[in-house]
Amino acid sequence: MEALKSLVSLHYFKMYVMNVLEYFKNITTFVFDIDGVLTDGKLYLMPGGTMWRVKNIKDCYALQLSIKMQYNILIISGGYSPESEQRLKKLGIKDIYMQVENKETLLDTFMKKNNLKQKEVLCMGDDIPDYTILKNAGLACCPADAVKEIKSISHYVSKIKGGEGCVRDVIEKVLQLNNSWPLDTNIKAR
Amino acid sequence: MEALKSLVSLHYFKMYVMNVLEYFKNITTFVFDIDGVLTDGKLYLMPGGTMWRVKNIKDCYALQLSIKMQYNILIISGGYSPESEQRLKKLGIKDIYMQVENKETLLDTFMKKNNLKQKEVLCMGDDIPDYTILKNAGLACCPADAVKEIKSISHYVSKIKGGEGCVRDVIEKVLQLNNSWPLDTNIKAR
Amino acid sequence: MEALKSLVSLHYFKMYVMNVLEYFKNITTFVFDIDGVLTDGKLYLMPGGTMWRVKNIKDCYALQLSIKMQYNILIISGGYSPESEQRLKKLGIKDIYMQVENKETLLDTFMKKNNLKQKEVLCMGDDIPDYTILKNAGLACCPADAVKEIKSISHYVSKIKGGEGCVRDVIEKVLQLNNSWPLDTNIKAR
Amino acid sequence: MEALKSLVSLHYFKMYVMNVLEYFKNITTFVFDIDGVLTDGKLYLMPGGTMWRVKNIKDCYALQLSIKMQYNILIISGGYSPESEQRLKKLGIKDIYMQVENKETLLDTFMKKNNLKQKEVLCMGDDIPDYTILKNAGLACCPADAVKEIKSISHYVSKIKGGEGCVRDVIEKVLQLNNSWPLDTNIKAR
Repeated sequence: MEALKSLVSLHYFKMYVMNVLEYFKNITTFVFDIDGVLTDGKLYLMPGGTMWRVKNIKDCYALQLSIKMQYNILIISGGYSPESEQRLKKLGIKDIYMQVENKETLLDTFMKKNNLKQKEVLCMGDDIPDYTILKNAGLACCPADAVKEIKSISHYVSKIKGGEGCVRDVIEKVLQLNNSWPLDTNIKAR
Repeated sequence: MEALKSLVSLHYFKMYVMNVLEYFKNITTFVFDIDGVLTDGKLYLMPGGTMWRVKNIKDCYALQLSIKMQYNILIISGGYSPESEQRLKKLGIKDIYMQVENKETLLDTFMKKNNLKQKEVLCMGDDIPDYTILKNAGLACCPADAVKEIKSISHYVSKIKGGEGCVRDVIEKVLQLNNSWPLDTNIKAR
Repeated sequence: MEALKSLVSLHYFKMYVMNVLEYFKNITTFVFDIDGVLTDGKLYLMPGGTMWRVKNIKDCYALQLSIKMQYNILIISGGYSPESEQRLKKLGIKDIYMQVENKETLLDTFMKKNNLKQKEVLCMGDDIPDYTILKNAGLACCPADAVKEIKSISHYVSKIKGGEGCVRDVIEKVLQLNNSWPLDTNIKAR
Repeated sequence: MEALKSLVSLHYFKMYVMNVLEYFKNITTFVFDIDGVLTDGKLYLMPGGTMWRVKNIKDCYALQLSIKMQYNILIISGGYSPESEQRLKKLGIKDIYMQVENKETLLDTFMKKNNLKQKEVLCMGDDIPDYTILKNAGLACCPADAVKEIKSISHYVSKIKGGEGCVRDVIEKVLQLNNSWPLDTNIKAR
């Protein structure tokens, strides 16, 4: 049903005719939201603080490998989690932006600075605050449990939920299509 | 089966004839229990303290939006969780009542003070301590995993479990029926 | 299959002929294991300590109500969790035994002291360390995810998993059969 | 499908003809990865630290019993978790290696030192960093939710997920085939 709706617009029509995998092949840059994408969207409250859950070490492996393979990784979150920042930095990610007021402007600036075309950019988000940035992405992706508003504008809806490996799912697709997914046993769990 | 039982009483009969969505349209005030509604009812015990799980950032988005749209939000809990209070305040909720001895009296007082009619009030609870307050609510709602005693008196049983987005489910219904559910990307994850 | 095996022994045969609910009716005393029964058996490790998960506030309601209704509650665990002890005491449970070397001896002593017959005692356990105590119980119960060795000797296998409300399941059965399961809204979440 | 692929290679062909259980019978040594095998692969981030989840106390029982029965247990992890180390030591495991650069070399050294044959060694891993060590194991095992690359080279794919008891599953098979799985009620939860 949602797939049918998407076909209405010529953009999506071309998309599916060309085969969505073609779009994955062009990607050089990944943009991920944190809550609901890298995590399962659950917030654990502790006395005097907040704990964030970064589910699935499998995502971490894929993030580390994509950096090694020279892909750009951008983390853009409206929320604030120093723990997530600390951990994502440990994986080698440099561009981590928290408490972002305007995700689109931030991405635009990054794209101009790095001379990136729209078709090179994959964005993955799960809820309405990600609506505009996904709308403008070359390849809009979302986890299996994204809200319906986001699913309806996504080119690719992963079969995997947020925090269960949906990030690895899209990274793996891009790297495999570019022969950059080796059986790398030198990546250590961090 | 439970639906059949409900039809026995004239109240519920009229309810379903009129279409339950009509009832959602009248709502101006939401009353939520914490454990089992805003959370999944799990308690994480830590050395020397208790940690409460507020599952699903998707609920948080809906709570923030409903406040922005001028709806009343009441949190009434028999338990005590300073962490939950702190976090719910951060979302902009002012009326948070913990360790409440008599939920009905508290709601009555609030309704009189704010000149609210019964049909304007939606209550969501999941267990027997919520029985009386739900019984008197204009619109009694419960999560998919509420106990059978609560399900049997609820006008609307969400398909979503406690802590997995059942709060967003009912807020979304009310706001959409009143054209107050925009694609608001300016609400930040908190 | 497991049910069939049970029927082989005359004890279980009589059991099922008489109807297992008759056995629930005689119960005055509940014996619960902690890990895998009151919790889901997961251990959360934290720097310098252990965190125990007491899943489902619904169990807590049932435990509080059963104490109010004058039932005996015994918690017997081979492990050690001061957090669990602290929390269970808060619910009004007095007989909490941790790091128990010999569960059977402890229960025997308790039964003699309180003049209890075997048929009054319901035991719920989930793993091999509970084998002997369940074997000697008047009514042996286990959660849906108990190990096969325990399931094969249980008179009643709850449809509910450890930490998801299996404790409430058996308490509710006993109290309802004795008309002691009121819609008590004065029990507060603790 | 994956089973069919395995049959292509003569090694696996012989394997299944001989019956995979024969291979379990020879095992004297277990090698386990931590994240995704002993845990469910989720990482809980806390302010200023990392929390590791060791799911399922049922695994702990099996680990303790196998040590009592004189089996060798090796824990080899690329990551670093002092909490896991502390807890696994409490269970009686001596050979715990964290931040291992080269898992194969470490296992080789251990095997030579203890005069172990390849067919005595069972390895369980879940992700690409475990690829080489599993490839060389006498019996390669993985949890139900291992990545496809690991599943395709495993002799035995447990029906149980990481952190839900997959470790107990393989230990139980080995011990039962060697009549070393008693109903031991003297193992205490730790």
